[in-house]
Amino acid sequence: MIYAIVGLGIMGGSVAKAVRSNIIGRDDQNGKIFALDKNEESLSAALTSGIIDLSFTPDKTKEMLAQADMVFVCLYPAATLNFFREHKNDFKDGAIITDISGVKHDLAAAIDRDEIRPSNAHLILGHPMAGGEKEGFAASRGEYFLNHNYILIKPKDGYEDEAAVEKFRKIIHGMGFTRITEVDADTHDNKIGFTSQLCHVVASAMVESAGDPEITSFGGGSFEDLTRIAMINAPLWTELFLANREKLVAHIENFEVQLDNLKKLIETQDADGLKSLLQDVRTKRIQMQKN
Amino acid sequence: MIYAIVGLGIMGGSVAKAVRSNIIGRDDQNGKIFALDKNEESLSAALTSGIIDLSFTPDKTKEMLAQADMVFVCLYPAATLNFFREHKNDFKDGAIITDISGVKHDLAAAIDRDEIRPSNAHLILGHPMAGGEKEGFAASRGEYFLNHNYILIKPKDGYEDEAAVEKFRKIIHGMGFTRITEVDADTHDNKIGFTSQLCHVVASAMVESAGDPEITSFGGGSFEDLTRIAMINAPLWTELFLANREKLVAHIENFEVQLDNLKKLIETQDADGLKSLLQDVRTKRIQMQKN
Repeated sequence: MIYAIVGLGIMGGSVAKAVRSNIIGRDDQNGKIFALDKNEESLSAALTSGIIDLSFTPDKTKEMLAQADMVFVCLYPAATLNFFREHKNDFKDGAIITDISGVKHDLAAAIDRDEIRPSNAHLILGHPMAGGEKEGFAASRGEYFLNHNYILIKPKDGYEDEAAVEKFRKIIHGMGFTRITEVDADTHDNKIGFTSQLCHVVASAMVESAGDPEITSFGGGSFEDLTRIAMINAPLWTELFLANREKLVAHIENFEVQLDNLKKLIETQDADGLKSLLQDVRTKRIQMQKN
Repeated sequence: MIYAIVGLGIMGGSVAKAVRSNIIGRDDQNGKIFALDKNEESLSAALTSGIIDLSFTPDKTKEMLAQADMVFVCLYPAATLNFFREHKNDFKDGAIITDISGVKHDLAAAIDRDEIRPSNAHLILGHPMAGGEKEGFAASRGEYFLNHNYILIKPKDGYEDEAAVEKFRKIIHGMGFTRITEVDADTHDNKIGFTSQLCHVVASAMVESAGDPEITSFGGGSFEDLTRIAMINAPLWTELFLANREKLVAHIENFEVQLDNLKKLIETQDADGLKSLLQDVRTKRIQMQKN
């Protein structure tokens, strides 16, 4: 079995390390890992540390894809679509191809509309729910995925090949992910728009609203916890926000209504209204904890 | 030296435990801890576990205060002011009296306006920067304060007695706090309004804006981290928000401007504007990390 990673950044690197230690290190001892990147330093670091078996520069993409049984495309969203478009005829027969994009509707729609789905291989869109503010192969870790959630995008009319999906599920669990959730692209984007993107927008607005950088000098933890995700990868999140703009803007507007409501209760000194709203918040948040 | 705790909840209990293990356990082996609470279960738990030496019910308040060299008033803000008002003549000569309220301007102003400052003892307002979503003596921990920040409120015209403040600083460090920041009440309330209160308001609005509780079922961490503080103590935070309403509302409005700006960049698909704003956010947030 040959695993190929396209893009050896923090995510691609973590996939390579997780496959190396948890899959090849255990059940698939004849497995090999190939990786493709434009950054030759990342490739050579991965080679010399024994994480990957063979490295490829972008001009050798077809050569790598022709041999790969499982291809992880770990690029930014727009580059992912371009990659699928450019290489739809370059995959090995029966290979499983996946991506890691944080937004799915536009990608899935473009794949159908432009007939980019490879005819001889299985393209299954996915989203490993593990992230951080770091970037690059040097920041990648195999333990990154342990006990995290993986989302698979289930097409509205079902999977094209259930056996291929089942094989992919085994690989996902093998990498250390605990739970696999399978939903359509729209549901994915709506939930991610709320739990991930809205949080990044809010944290960014919070940092931006700190007029004086010294205002945070007391510490205390709340601001730090809330805005850690504001150490944001600007080019990546610009793509993600724009690719999901309708759902994200709707979430921002719902949030604005609730914020304005809280502000009015404080402004008008409505102690009873405020206390009762905060009780409700507490109850809801504790319930979410249990979900 | 007799340390007296008024209100043996999570904060009062943590003060008692930190004094017990870090001060009496080391440099002040003849020290005693007294505690006052209306909850007799908390008192008896603290007594039997050897955290406190003597317990007092509210009807014995004067008896306790007459003996105490260091009094920590660990009550909610309004109750704190009432306590100072009611007991201004009950403190031991030369005692140090402090509070833990999260908002200071109104309290400091009322103390001056109503002449509540005890004539024979030293009232020094403070704010231990350690908190959590838990409540009650059972949740208190002596290690709670380790490496945290303590804020002392320095009156505009300086401390009334520097020697008493220096004695108090030693106790604060003794409990495990690393850094003591000394500012006037207005500066305190402005900074806390941003780094703590605005975060609690935003986290609450975020939880409230989750129409469907299932929307958070993907996990992923961002939403969980951002809204952990929304498991909020509603009566306490209602008091805190209202006591600091002018500064807090101003912070909310600054935040709303930034949020709206981000929303517009997303709505109008202004990729360059969005990317450049997010770069700025990242730079600012990393700078804050270093402050």
